[in-house]
Amino acid sequence: MNKMKKTILILIRVLSIGATVSAAIVMATGHENTNILSIPTQANYSDTPAFKYFLIANIIGSVYGFTVCFLPQESSLLRLVLISDVVMSVVLTSSLSAAMAIAELGKKGNSHAGWQPICGQFHNYCDHVAAALAAAFIALIFYTSLIFHSIHTLLYPMSLL
Amino acid sequence: MNKMKKTILILIRVLSIGATVSAAIVMATGHENTNILSIPTQANYSDTPAFKYFLIANIIGSVYGFTVCFLPQESSLLRLVLISDVVMSVVLTSSLSAAMAIAELGKKGNSHAGWQPICGQFHNYCDHVAAALAAAFIALIFYTSLIFHSIHTLLYPMSLL
Repeated sequence: MNKMKKTILILIRVLSIGATVSAAIVMATGHENTNILSIPTQANYSDTPAFKYFLIANIIGSVYGFTVCFLPQESSLLRLVLISDVVMSVVLTSSLSAAMAIAELGKKGNSHAGWQPICGQFHNYCDHVAAALAAAFIALIFYTSLIFHSIHTLLYPMSLL
Repeated sequence: MNKMKKTILILIRVLSIGATVSAAIVMATGHENTNILSIPTQANYSDTPAFKYFLIANIIGSVYGFTVCFLPQESSLLRLVLISDVVMSVVLTSSLSAAMAIAELGKKGNSHAGWQPICGQFHNYCDHVAAALAAAFIALIFYTSLIFHSIHTLLYPMSLL
């Protein structure tokens, strides 16, 4: 049972790395060229500070995830991993929320501020951003489950779950 | 020492309530009327979904803070409070990040997307938003210290800190 538990935990950790790596790659490759009023225009993640923050947070999340996989399974380290998992999930939540706020603006605009939606002109770019946000959201679900498991293990060390 | 520790914890909890209540009030009252090209225009938090989410998150944070103050100081409840503090701080982080992304756009705009800054026309409104964000940031610092204290207490129940 203990071996199965460890396998599931490593699987969740690997899936969370996969999700943050996917989010970073999809965001970084999401650029599109189009002509607006015959003027060549390009949309790129680097045009938006929130998307740059999102990319950096997901790269850090990926590197952190890899590092944790190679740590020995000791109780004292488990506490450190719990705290760093909490910090990492706060950083990922923060970057995801900021990117979502801008993505929502890109899709719907804000008529009060005079900000027009841009997804009508940049379909592929918006699809890329949406996919990156979805991947980061999945990573957050994995992180949340890892945190709750760590808290559970620290509170009830003898539990089989 | 134990009594002093409890007093400090209650003080931090009360300060975090003060910060979330301030953030909610300052955001909710931050509207401004001005004339742009002789057309009367109003800026209001309710024009922006991210600011509405920010207001709701801070109201929930305030109500939650009040509720926790009246809970008995039992060990089993401390675990529940730790988990709900983590959830609450994730919600506050998320709303703060989304609001900050939009506030940054309001201040600097995004020339690539054709979104002009609006803070030149709405000084008071932008000052209100900045103050609300600062209050929410302070609330988050208090929540973080409460979470780390709860983790410490659960891991080392006999510690005086």
